[in-house]
Amino acid sequence: MKRLVPIALAALSCLAHAAPDTSTPRTMQDVLDASRPSDWRKPDPRDLVYMELPGGRVVIELASRHAPLHAENIRTLVRAGYFDGLEVLRVQDNYVTQWGDPDGSDPAKARPSGKAAKTLAPEFERAIVEGEPFTRLPDGDVYAPEVGFSDGFPVGRDPAAGRIWLAHCYGMVGAGRDNAPDSGPGQELYVVIGHAPRHLDRNIALVGRVLKGMEHLAGLPRGNEAMGFYGKGEARTPIRAVRLAADVPEAGREPIEVLRTDTPTFAALIESRRNRHEAWFLKPAGKIDLCNVPIPVRVARPAREP
Amino acid sequence: MKRLVPIALAALSCLAHAAPDTSTPRTMQDVLDASRPSDWRKPDPRDLVYMELPGGRVVIELASRHAPLHAENIRTLVRAGYFDGLEVLRVQDNYVTQWGDPDGSDPAKARPSGKAAKTLAPEFERAIVEGEPFTRLPDGDVYAPEVGFSDGFPVGRDPAAGRIWLAHCYGMVGAGRDNAPDSGPGQELYVVIGHAPRHLDRNIALVGRVLKGMEHLAGLPRGNEAMGFYGKGEARTPIRAVRLAADVPEAGREPIEVLRTDTPTFAALIESRRNRHEAWFLKPAGKIDLCNVPIPVRVARPAREP
Repeated sequence: MKRLVPIALAALSCLAHAAPDTSTPRTMQDVLDASRPSDWRKPDPRDLVYMELPGGRVVIELASRHAPLHAENIRTLVRAGYFDGLEVLRVQDNYVTQWGDPDGSDPAKARPSGKAAKTLAPEFERAIVEGEPFTRLPDGDVYAPEVGFSDGFPVGRDPAAGRIWLAHCYGMVGAGRDNAPDSGPGQELYVVIGHAPRHLDRNIALVGRVLKGMEHLAGLPRGNEAMGFYGKGEARTPIRAVRLAADVPEAGREPIEVLRTDTPTFAALIESRRNRHEAWFLKPAGKIDLCNVPIPVRVARPAREP
Repeated sequence: MKRLVPIALAALSCLAHAAPDTSTPRTMQDVLDASRPSDWRKPDPRDLVYMELPGGRVVIELASRHAPLHAENIRTLVRAGYFDGLEVLRVQDNYVTQWGDPDGSDPAKARPSGKAAKTLAPEFERAIVEGEPFTRLPDGDVYAPEVGFSDGFPVGRDPAAGRIWLAHCYGMVGAGRDNAPDSGPGQELYVVIGHAPRHLDRNIALVGRVLKGMEHLAGLPRGNEAMGFYGKGEARTPIRAVRLAADVPEAGREPIEVLRTDTPTFAALIESRRNRHEAWFLKPAGKIDLCNVPIPVRVARPAREP
């Protein structure tokens, strides 16, 4: 069978735990094989959201540093059980999958959001904090003066204006809003399932990134109504439950680690993707755009026996 | 219900046929409403491939100008019924859906490809032809010296080297190959279903673009094996039949038209997407990248009654 050989890294595909070696890394797998335990981080369980869908679990990391108000409001909603039993409302091809309350626009039937804020100050961008981590990509960007990674998330920056913002790459999660800038407190969330809609950057609050289970959101049937909303006759995917990892017993948590984005190892990974050395490639690009850089996720090494 | 308001244009969403007006177009819908019949083209039926999947029909336009050898070989395969009864072999999240012969790698069981070429000269890029249409985008590109549209397809160009190539945007169709550059004659095809993997540009032959039915390819369950291949226990989507529109009776053809990419109307459409004037947007990007420019497809106006 003819195979399109290059491999796009899937989340959790990096299961190897080889000891660091001293050879020059070339492919991404080389880089990962040579990584050290300190190149990986365990996300804070208070930043990890587990969403249980019929197809499986989706794990989302909240971007608490970039959108602290939204992250906190989503934590409040999750802990109140707000999302349990809600539904995927919309799957628009090459754009977003969106979930929330199907009765949310009807005040008489909408699910109460309890102590959670009903409106929230827009966190579409923020001031750059001096000294915060930022790994800049060398190849430029169509939309932002500079792009790179900060705290494990893809970002755009405008150093002249002193501003930084999360970027709408595949797998990024945001808080849907109406026309009012403060109308997206996190009750309705979306995830990017197509080519990065970077024109949304700075127009809406991104709140996190899917670390695992994107296939359960991106592989859903598209909705047939305008903007990919499901019609009355279409089966909406139910959300069985949503929990914070911090509220799940240790044994039920996902043992995952994320490659840090502020290390020489990550810089080497970027280089390995700018110039692909796998045998299949005839003409390495020599460049890479922000949303083509994978941020690897792996199953954590079990704790050592005493 | 909170709605993420911006609309990513779905194929065939443009059903309006308003008369051209003289006001200044601002949104994409304004531009389309003001378009003239001459802004649209009917693709050559010899370039249109209908692939019948359980979910519905996929319509692919072959890029005969950019990859003439591959287009012709695919026509030969289609006309011989080569694809009828084959299967979707692979769905890799944020990458590609790929289809072909599940027994293709077993010479004893592989389906014969008849008069079609078994190997084919690589058409990964070609010489720029003086005077051929090219609508250049103004905002640059990470991967290519310049990008734009030619004959209805997204392309990269290197004017200094005199080269042009099709670009791996969402919905573009290519011919899978092994490591040998001539090993992808079109028996196994893939379509981009995620963020544009532009690092594949110039490394493999793109052969066309999906005009309609992307949801039937992008919304499929992802495969669980390496690179998204389906395992033995997983249900592969069957391909019922593949036909050239030219071989289908007129009544069974898709009455679709594609917006030309070499007109002032298309230039106005690009501008309407660089600066989004819909009420929802707070901060228009002022820029656009190649793979975020939609190429609208619509149902053709019925022929006038005599």
